[in-house]
Amino acid sequence: MAYTDALQSLKALLATIRDLKAANDVLSWDQQTYMPAGGINTRAEQMATVSRLIHERATSAELGALLDRLDGQLDSETDDGALVRIARRDFEHDTKLSADLVERLSRATALADAVWVQARLTSDWSLFAPHLRTIVELQREMAEQYGYTTHPFDALINVDEPGTTKAQIEQMYRELKVGTLPLMKAIRQQQDDDRTRPLHGQFDEARQEQFGMEVIKRFGFDWNRGRQDRAVHPFCTNFSMNDVRLTTRFDPTWLAPAMFGTMHEAGHGMYEQGVAQRFTRSPLAAGCSMGIHESQSRLWENLVGRSRPFWEFFYAPLQNLFPEQLQSVDLDTFYRAINSVQPSLIRVEADELTYNLHTLLRFEVELGLLEGTLKVEEVPALWNAKVAEYLGITPPNDTLGALQDVHWSAGLFAYFPTYTVGNVLAVQFFDAAVAASPAIPDEMRQGEFGTLHGWLNENIYQHGRKYDPNDLVQRATGRPMDTAPYISYLKTKYGALYKL
Amino acid sequence: MAYTDALQSLKALLATIRDLKAANDVLSWDQQTYMPAGGINTRAEQMATVSRLIHERATSAELGALLDRLDGQLDSETDDGALVRIARRDFEHDTKLSADLVERLSRATALADAVWVQARLTSDWSLFAPHLRTIVELQREMAEQYGYTTHPFDALINVDEPGTTKAQIEQMYRELKVGTLPLMKAIRQQQDDDRTRPLHGQFDEARQEQFGMEVIKRFGFDWNRGRQDRAVHPFCTNFSMNDVRLTTRFDPTWLAPAMFGTMHEAGHGMYEQGVAQRFTRSPLAAGCSMGIHESQSRLWENLVGRSRPFWEFFYAPLQNLFPEQLQSVDLDTFYRAINSVQPSLIRVEADELTYNLHTLLRFEVELGLLEGTLKVEEVPALWNAKVAEYLGITPPNDTLGALQDVHWSAGLFAYFPTYTVGNVLAVQFFDAAVAASPAIPDEMRQGEFGTLHGWLNENIYQHGRKYDPNDLVQRATGRPMDTAPYISYLKTKYGALYKL
Repeated sequence: MAYTDALQSLKALLATIRDLKAANDVLSWDQQTYMPAGGINTRAEQMATVSRLIHERATSAELGALLDRLDGQLDSETDDGALVRIARRDFEHDTKLSADLVERLSRATALADAVWVQARLTSDWSLFAPHLRTIVELQREMAEQYGYTTHPFDALINVDEPGTTKAQIEQMYRELKVGTLPLMKAIRQQQDDDRTRPLHGQFDEARQEQFGMEVIKRFGFDWNRGRQDRAVHPFCTNFSMNDVRLTTRFDPTWLAPAMFGTMHEAGHGMYEQGVAQRFTRSPLAAGCSMGIHESQSRLWENLVGRSRPFWEFFYAPLQNLFPEQLQSVDLDTFYRAINSVQPSLIRVEADELTYNLHTLLRFEVELGLLEGTLKVEEVPALWNAKVAEYLGITPPNDTLGALQDVHWSAGLFAYFPTYTVGNVLAVQFFDAAVAASPAIPDEMRQGEFGTLHGWLNENIYQHGRKYDPNDLVQRATGRPMDTAPYISYLKTKYGALYKL
Repeated sequence: MAYTDALQSLKALLATIRDLKAANDVLSWDQQTYMPAGGINTRAEQMATVSRLIHERATSAELGALLDRLDGQLDSETDDGALVRIARRDFEHDTKLSADLVERLSRATALADAVWVQARLTSDWSLFAPHLRTIVELQREMAEQYGYTTHPFDALINVDEPGTTKAQIEQMYRELKVGTLPLMKAIRQQQDDDRTRPLHGQFDEARQEQFGMEVIKRFGFDWNRGRQDRAVHPFCTNFSMNDVRLTTRFDPTWLAPAMFGTMHEAGHGMYEQGVAQRFTRSPLAAGCSMGIHESQSRLWENLVGRSRPFWEFFYAPLQNLFPEQLQSVDLDTFYRAINSVQPSLIRVEADELTYNLHTLLRFEVELGLLEGTLKVEEVPALWNAKVAEYLGITPPNDTLGALQDVHWSAGLFAYFPTYTVGNVLAVQFFDAAVAASPAIPDEMRQGEFGTLHGWLNENIYQHGRKYDPNDLVQRATGRPMDTAPYISYLKTKYGALYKL
């Protein structure tokens, strides 16, 4: 077959796979937003059928033969070259695992998830432990099948962060510990009042929603190519760069979750909306990696949404929406409230400073489990000891401790560090944008975000999966991932907030 | 292959097809309810891909071989026997048309639909005419490929009403004309006031919605297995009997459309919800035919929703929702308003009495086109002449005349009569239910519908597609379709309303 014909056949096959994935994503989005409760069983069958058809094509001999025909034929800098490279990586990823392992993993996680829900309700680790033991075994098998030279973690993190290793993650955490633990200790010694009080009270949901939608419209979220719905567990999904769905959840007694949640999901969403249109229906039409994706949500949530320049513009409109609650709260008090540092038992509620300790502790637990040096039944004790060591607080039960996250029951190992990669990269990208356009903070004070959005679009969004994560970071910022700007940002921001 | 193995393979293949159809229906529902405008192109690609995969399976040699193996092996009264029979019919339907014709029809209707929208805006039949000419040619080809002995219409109506013929439809219309034209003439001579005035004014949409949802909950619509959303063109769809979606549209200045629209769509919806659970993921899990389906929506909309017993219970709650608008309107005046007979140019707004004249005129036009005795460019003149003859009014333009319906541009020929079949059967079924349980009207006066819903469930809903339409009518009512009860119903109801 001429290589041009092979390329065309490859694109057609990949487009079919992409269309089926989009269909499955619509089924999943609908399940989490509008599906009546009674629909659950047949929806599960529908998604299983579509998943099976995707898997058949994604691992087909036809796809393998086309990739073999095209290997080395195209300049890797071109779109087509990148397409073949990424398609090859996906194919190897999908075919490396034996069908038997995939099936056992699917069954084990389905069972584990149901038991985890129950264990979490009753705070009973012993219920969940045997299931986690099975899943850890399966993770080790996965690592063997994927292959690695140094550590099984390398094989697993490569799924979400291609090109990243355990050693790099350890280095990142070492630097963060050295850089931020003294800061946290100094803050903890202050023992001041609960700064978050202005965020609690009665806040009408419709007004919260109105505010969030207005904010992300100004960020540059395109409402013609996206929408926002409500879901129990907020998420962002997309069915093309022209159909991006955000979801959020409102707490009528607490202003923070929906407000920052909307900005966070919009960060994911603007990334997907920004992927170049020419990548439509191809595997390049998606974010580069989990860490890069998270950097985009954290950038808009924290670097923008928790910044003082942002609130110099947006605080008056927010006060106007909630005059009774906020008229007597001045801007500085509000700014301190949304940036209060408080050790928290729950990762998803953690502040910017303590957040990474949550992912670090999970990373350390996972290493022990994968290496076999930590037994599943020892996890809660180790967990609690680490929470006490890192955060100075003690979980009263496992529901607020080792049972809080869904990831392990879902078979997601080597995933938590990508959240911290996202935090680190958010600052590195933001700094690069401001270095290129120093007016960005002033624009933020005017409620304008066009320059920042444009820089992200140019340097990150449009490329989709064309470059590997390390390559993308290098191209966008001129150097590899670097924790120094992040540590510097935290020291400056929280030093000022806590007068250190 | 042992026939039991063949049966199992057949069921698995049909379940896959059913799952893919459900996925496509979710994509379509989403497109019409929540999809952002920008998503249209990629959604079209996604649906085309899923449709292609459905078609591949539905016409596959594998399916044909399984059906050949199973033919005559199973008692046709059993579920499995019915499954094989219906699957055979679907397979022959899907394979009889050449791929070439399907493709030409798809292209022609896509083009015709866009032109029809434009022609309707500008009331320009000449724009649409060449496209309709192509579609008529394709309909004739379709009829040839499906095959028929007497008339091409027989082949086409068989798609939606298996076992029905042109001759039966003609007989039905003849009886309706004889039975109802004198009644209409007598009403038209009364020339009284506009009885519909109480339905016009300002009616808050949220309260309209609240009322509709409460009504259909009492009908027996299961909100745990269904929901209601808004769409430009109201419809009902389902992805299983446990996930049924209604859509509606509100007019804030006119009470009737959403109220009766909700009851109408709920009639379709309760039918789908009532199909036996054991038919899940099989081709038996759907309504029996278009006419039977329409009978269920019309039964709840007209026989219940436009009846006096219904309003003896529901009028007070409606007045409470709209006290300003309705407090000075008594029950009889309201009842007259919702049952006002007024010749209308628009079929979908027609009253019960004149509605069938709209479908009759389209039926007659279609026969002329299919037989070649009517030229496409002559349609508007014939249309207007028939509207004048049947309804005594004259369309001022083709937008309100021959261009009003979407069906022809969508390639739906031999479809309009199924609406009238639905009207006729609605009364036949309702009468049979009341004959079995004479307390039904009294229950309606109490806002209770359990006996009626139970009868429909027992005699119609649960069977899905197990029986052919004529067979189902015979089983449920003890005789074939019969216009006499319908004519009698109209004479009694409108005779009283107009004191004739």
